[in-house]
Amino acid sequence: MARGDPNYKLTYFDLRGLSEPVRYLFAYAKVEYDDNRIKREDWPAMKKDMPFRTLPVLEVDGQTIGQSKAIGRFLAKRFNLVGQDDIEQARVDALVDYLEDVKHAGVGLMTLFREQDEKKKQEMKDQFFGETLPDYMDVLEQHLRSNNGGKGFFVGSGPTWADFAVAVFMDALDKFQPGFLSKYPLLSAHKARVEDLKGTKEWIAKRPKTVM
Amino acid sequence: MARGDPNYKLTYFDLRGLSEPVRYLFAYAKVEYDDNRIKREDWPAMKKDMPFRTLPVLEVDGQTIGQSKAIGRFLAKRFNLVGQDDIEQARVDALVDYLEDVKHAGVGLMTLFREQDEKKKQEMKDQFFGETLPDYMDVLEQHLRSNNGGKGFFVGSGPTWADFAVAVFMDALDKFQPGFLSKYPLLSAHKARVEDLKGTKEWIAKRPKTVM
Ligand SMILES: N[C@@H](CCC(=O)N[C@@H](CS)C(=O)NCC(=O)O)C(=O)O
Ligand SMILES: N[C@@H](CCC(=O)N[C@@H](CS)C(=O)NCC(=O)O)C(=O)O
Repeated sequence: MARGDPNYKLTYFDLRGLSEPVRYLFAYAKVEYDDNRIKREDWPAMKKDMPFRTLPVLEVDGQTIGQSKAIGRFLAKRFNLVGQDDIEQARVDALVDYLEDVKHAGVGLMTLFREQDEKKKQEMKDQFFGETLPDYMDVLEQHLRSNNGGKGFFVGSGPTWADFAVAVFMDALDKFQPGFLSKYPLLSAHKARVEDLKGTKEWIAKRPKTVM
Repeated sequence: MARGDPNYKLTYFDLRGLSEPVRYLFAYAKVEYDDNRIKREDWPAMKKDMPFRTLPVLEVDGQTIGQSKAIGRFLAKRFNLVGQDDIEQARVDALVDYLEDVKHAGVGLMTLFREQDEKKKQEMKDQFFGETLPDYMDVLEQHLRSNNGGKGFFVGSGPTWADFAVAVFMDALDKFQPGFLSKYPLLSAHKARVEDLKGTKEWIAKRPKTVM
């Protein structure tokens, strides 16, 4: 790190989760940061001092920023990955926010995660992935298709941080319901494209292996 | 509207809902727009053509932008209501995103809205407002308190669009569970402050009366 460069510290659990798009940003931009992964047992004592009592948070120059998407946008601006004009930026923001609609569609992804009864869980998953998600996947593929000058990225000539957010999300879906993504060739190819970018590729090869 | 000014058209249902912070933005910035409120029965035919198959959308110069927060941020940038530097902007973004955490806390606000059994609904509401929300309200009041050079706004010397988003959200909560907000003096005063701004005040006096 060059002297005078800002000092970035990202604090989260030892998971990909909400932080992985942020880590892709650092990796792609080749910017050093402290990838601080805390232990579950250390969290209760820290919680109260976090701006929203959640993780991730980003510390930069003595300031603490909460909320994963606010952190992502902040860094994406600094790394010139937000889109080239205000219309592109709005499209990028919209795609990132759409992922929340996807998460909360139907019974909601978190409900599935939390379900303890394995049989019930699989039924709920089959319904979610088989009936709820296809419309949403279709919307995302339409966005990819309509940006046909875009070299396979979502907005403009890409990549932008929306590409990172979508690719990480698709990876999580595909790990949760193995084989699911293969039904969506455009999104599959998009994920592969993001994972093959210089910077993200090296990061993915070396990142800690975690359950999610 | 001066010739050459961009032409803004906001399309939504005849509700405050997700569009009201955007309407506050236009009102406060004193920018003309077409406040297009569609009828429920006209929606199914339009749905497929919207970027995310939802409303609101903003049309500007032949482009259509979806997702209420992307629209809000886009306009807030144009109207200089996003915060003065990138750290302030991240704080504004984080507050706006935090409202999603609030919406989805506990059983989630939408579950309450949808519950048909009135007795069950009231029980769920009492639990949500009495047990789930207080921690979240506390976080928001802490943010207000810590910005003590800020003339009572959330970030910097405000107002920013985060103030509009929070004030609209608090108004919705207080209408859903009457009297709730009075337990939170800082948030009550903040809502009153936003509603008394030149521009928003006039808008609130003249806006269509709708159920939500
Ligand atoms: N909307 C927030 C959600 C943050 C969140 O819920 N984080 C979880 C981990 S993924 C957390 O901090 N859980 C521990 C807790 O709430 O105590 C964001 O995007 O950052
Ligand atoms: N995250 C989206 C949510 C949009 C949304 O769910 N809109 C609702 C109205 S509040 C809608 O379009 N409902 C009709 C439908 O889904 O067919 C946003 O913030 O704009």
